[in-house]
Amino acid sequence: MEGGGEKFKKAQRAMKDRSALAYLNDASIITRLKDLKYYQKTMKNDPWIRIIAPEITPPTLRDNTADVDRLIRGIKKCLHIDEVVIDFSLLKRLPHALRQYDYRINAILHKVQTGWRLIDILSSQNDSCIYGLAVDLGSSTVVIQLVDLKSQKTIDKKSFHNPQIEIGTDILTRIHFAAKRGGLDKLQSLLMERLNENIDQLAKMHNIRTDSIVGISVAGNTTMAHFFLGMDPYWLCREPYIPVINKPEHIKSSDLGLAINPEAPVLVFPNVGSYFGGDLIAGILASGITHQDKVSFLVDVGTNAEVVIGNCDWLMGCAGAAGPALEGGVADMGMMAGPGVIDKVVIDPVSSEFKIRTIENDPTVGICGSGLIDLIAQLFLAGMIDLRGKYVAGKCNGRLVEVEGVKHLVVVTPANSGTGQALTLSQTDIDGIIRSKAAMYTILTTITNTVNISMNDINKFYIAGTFGSYIDPQSAITIGMMPDLPLETYIPLGNTSLKGAGMALVSAQAKDEIYRIRDNITYLELNVNQEFMNLFSAAKFIPHTDSALFPSAKTGGS
Amino acid sequence: MEGGGEKFKKAQRAMKDRSALAYLNDASIITRLKDLKYYQKTMKNDPWIRIIAPEITPPTLRDNTADVDRLIRGIKKCLHIDEVVIDFSLLKRLPHALRQYDYRINAILHKVQTGWRLIDILSSQNDSCIYGLAVDLGSSTVVIQLVDLKSQKTIDKKSFHNPQIEIGTDILTRIHFAAKRGGLDKLQSLLMERLNENIDQLAKMHNIRTDSIVGISVAGNTTMAHFFLGMDPYWLCREPYIPVINKPEHIKSSDLGLAINPEAPVLVFPNVGSYFGGDLIAGILASGITHQDKVSFLVDVGTNAEVVIGNCDWLMGCAGAAGPALEGGVADMGMMAGPGVIDKVVIDPVSSEFKIRTIENDPTVGICGSGLIDLIAQLFLAGMIDLRGKYVAGKCNGRLVEVEGVKHLVVVTPANSGTGQALTLSQTDIDGIIRSKAAMYTILTTITNTVNISMNDINKFYIAGTFGSYIDPQSAITIGMMPDLPLETYIPLGNTSLKGAGMALVSAQAKDEIYRIRDNITYLELNVNQEFMNLFSAAKFIPHTDSALFPSAKTGGS
Repeated sequence: MEGGGEKFKKAQRAMKDRSALAYLNDASIITRLKDLKYYQKTMKNDPWIRIIAPEITPPTLRDNTADVDRLIRGIKKCLHIDEVVIDFSLLKRLPHALRQYDYRINAILHKVQTGWRLIDILSSQNDSCIYGLAVDLGSSTVVIQLVDLKSQKTIDKKSFHNPQIEIGTDILTRIHFAAKRGGLDKLQSLLMERLNENIDQLAKMHNIRTDSIVGISVAGNTTMAHFFLGMDPYWLCREPYIPVINKPEHIKSSDLGLAINPEAPVLVFPNVGSYFGGDLIAGILASGITHQDKVSFLVDVGTNAEVVIGNCDWLMGCAGAAGPALEGGVADMGMMAGPGVIDKVVIDPVSSEFKIRTIENDPTVGICGSGLIDLIAQLFLAGMIDLRGKYVAGKCNGRLVEVEGVKHLVVVTPANSGTGQALTLSQTDIDGIIRSKAAMYTILTTITNTVNISMNDINKFYIAGTFGSYIDPQSAITIGMMPDLPLETYIPLGNTSLKGAGMALVSAQAKDEIYRIRDNITYLELNVNQEFMNLFSAAKFIPHTDSALFPSAKTGGS
Repeated sequence: MEGGGEKFKKAQRAMKDRSALAYLNDASIITRLKDLKYYQKTMKNDPWIRIIAPEITPPTLRDNTADVDRLIRGIKKCLHIDEVVIDFSLLKRLPHALRQYDYRINAILHKVQTGWRLIDILSSQNDSCIYGLAVDLGSSTVVIQLVDLKSQKTIDKKSFHNPQIEIGTDILTRIHFAAKRGGLDKLQSLLMERLNENIDQLAKMHNIRTDSIVGISVAGNTTMAHFFLGMDPYWLCREPYIPVINKPEHIKSSDLGLAINPEAPVLVFPNVGSYFGGDLIAGILASGITHQDKVSFLVDVGTNAEVVIGNCDWLMGCAGAAGPALEGGVADMGMMAGPGVIDKVVIDPVSSEFKIRTIENDPTVGICGSGLIDLIAQLFLAGMIDLRGKYVAGKCNGRLVEVEGVKHLVVVTPANSGTGQALTLSQTDIDGIIRSKAAMYTILTTITNTVNISMNDINKFYIAGTFGSYIDPQSAITIGMMPDLPLETYIPLGNTSLKGAGMALVSAQAKDEIYRIRDNITYLELNVNQEFMNLFSAAKFIPHTDSALFPSAKTGGS
């Protein structure tokens, strides 16, 4: 650890919880948000998957109603409803189960359009615990969360790398692979097998039968949702960028080969389009912006920059993958978060010493996105790069080296590195970051211009995603990536994809809301926006050509 | 042919059309009934399976709605509906098909609770013919009827023996077989394989793809429906006689392995109980009694005697299998209809000569139920049997022989027989028929007494079933099997099971009505009726101990 003072070490210990796997524990982040109280309250009493104990009298000569119809009658009476749907796959098993349990049963059901659909029946003598899974279906990392559907409490979480990475780290490679013979099946089965393994491990660890997992809620980007469903992603990346489906419905776990209760409903978050997926719908749900009068931003700085603006009356969204400057993406700048990865940099204004924090305080092996933003901001403030992001050789204290004609700044020397190699930041890297930050700011400006709202009217700036959670808003403002708003405006939400999936798993109101969000959002197609390229050019300076936009920004040391 | 005069021969030629397979052509019987005009009219414009040509615009950057949602939008607009359901099994295939057909498609849908469910899409360039199957699922004979769902016209019919006969001719043997390991699967697959063979043959014969058969409507007794669905019939024949299901719903052809369009809905007629099946619900539908102010009877004299009484306001039904006297059943008295089987007998009152008609005028091989009723009536009128149905030796003109102490009447001599053996009717046979006819009349009396209606208030006496179609009402009245009503009261309806299945296949109104019929019928449980045995004893005379009940009946020749 270079230049670690006592104060910094204390902060670093406090931050240790926010280590590589800390993003799994984002509940603490979410629950401290006042805006989300709405959900906390309503979710408690509004489940769409329920276990009930209907009263079913055994048959007699005077009441010869058939077994299935007898069960349906009991459920209707118990729930005060008009329709109970039972799939054929479940029907045949029912009479034996009813008699085996002597007509004393618990019934597990979930709400459908006009009534409730039966998932399973259990003996009323048995443990009546039922569980659900919320899934954040990331293209890099998949997180599964086991939820007790009765108490609505999270029991455990588990994350694993998306096994499709072996086909390709980027999603486009996978889409091309899917077009090959058997490719799509391979991608789907890789995912399902790993998912099932992890579900099984989670179930075993908590001593529950996978059959008692009776619902699953899955949020992911549109391509991942297509892979999950085994649907052809071919047209997702080809103009005019059309998904197979926007609102996947009527799916049960056995349709997909999920190793949970075969009749369990599978809620796959709807998408708005190829580049605006269910993960972002989950983010909007989790952020609560649709329940606020004032206008907020929700930004997910992942592989793409996805931006939503709106309030309880309207919503507009766009996704950065449609913006040419974001090709290659922010995430290409460094490594994914993990032990030894730099996530915070401070350059001492006096000594020009680099104070570097790595995750879990391990020897430095790389730098993640939030670390890069810090680094660029600090380099600018120290005058080591200029307004255009170019290295100022005289300010770099001999840290600059030239490799194949490109300037590189040595951030960590081989002696201090965990890899034995120097960690360097090239001019090309910086140029990439500048393009990305310019794209982000341009998207934010384009969307506010489109809806005719001033940046100063933004009440909250929610930052979704693991990567986003670690961004220091001050650094992001310094480089002109995010608007110059009071720091308290910025609220990191952590893994909103998982949080949204969890909310929709336990609350009918939340589940209904994701479809309302989807149907009401206006998608701003950046590809066809003429203003974008002009704004983009102006945003390629640090912080911006128009310094009036960043009144609080410190100037660089140049 | 014994005693065939010119006149009889002429009648016999005219009757030739009503030969062994003539019952397949019962449309002529049905359509001449004024009561059924109601259906003829409403069915035309009320299909629940439809093919439509929704307008679907190809996707653009400005309209990036997903393929599936685009299709759903087009269908909703075309049908002016709010919900379109697409099963997951169909979803994956849709985007390829839509693009292959260049978004110019026909969509096949069927009505469900809250909207319409997609069955398939076709290129609008293709032939847009869609077909359905109506099935009479008899325990002896299965009849399938191919219907053009657009014109609602019957294209062809085909009948075959129920292949489950190889397990057992009677249904109880099959129920017991189903309890053996793999027994139920065997019974179901026997039926499905034979059904699929015949469907395939029918389709090939008319040069249609089985995929264009997009709906199937099946009426059968409760046990046959259970076999068809692969549901355990174990409890059907055990007190308190409980079916697995009364109203099978949400079933598609691929659930059952039917070789038609995999998404085709399967309408299985509901039942009222173990002994009151969908075949009778179909009969009630086909009879139209629920659309008449005046009270009618509907009687199906098959293996069991099933009786329904009612009008547009109320319905009551009972099934004879619940009556102890009907054990063994009417159908055990002779052979099933077929070439060479006697279906009409007249004994010349002067010469005592037997005038016998056989089906297709073939050499005599046996006698069917309607022939037996004629024969008993004629024997009684000729004085050859007395009031109790006992042979009067002096009147039998030497036709009586004694075999193992039991009197047998030689109906056809070996010389005139197609088998080389004499066809005889034993005293035991007659006793059985007397018990059966007494049971039938007792059921009719019990049910009229229960609802407090006089026999004379019966407006129409509909006779359902193949066997019933050939019964001569005059003979049935003569032996006291049916009440002494004007002959025009009796109306044979032929195969109402098939007819009802066909009506429900093409008309949403008819389909809805079968559930109304089911829900509104009061089932009279004869097992628990004390009056039955007293009435039964009185009805064991020819025609009855109370001759006032049969004012028009001729007395026997004794």
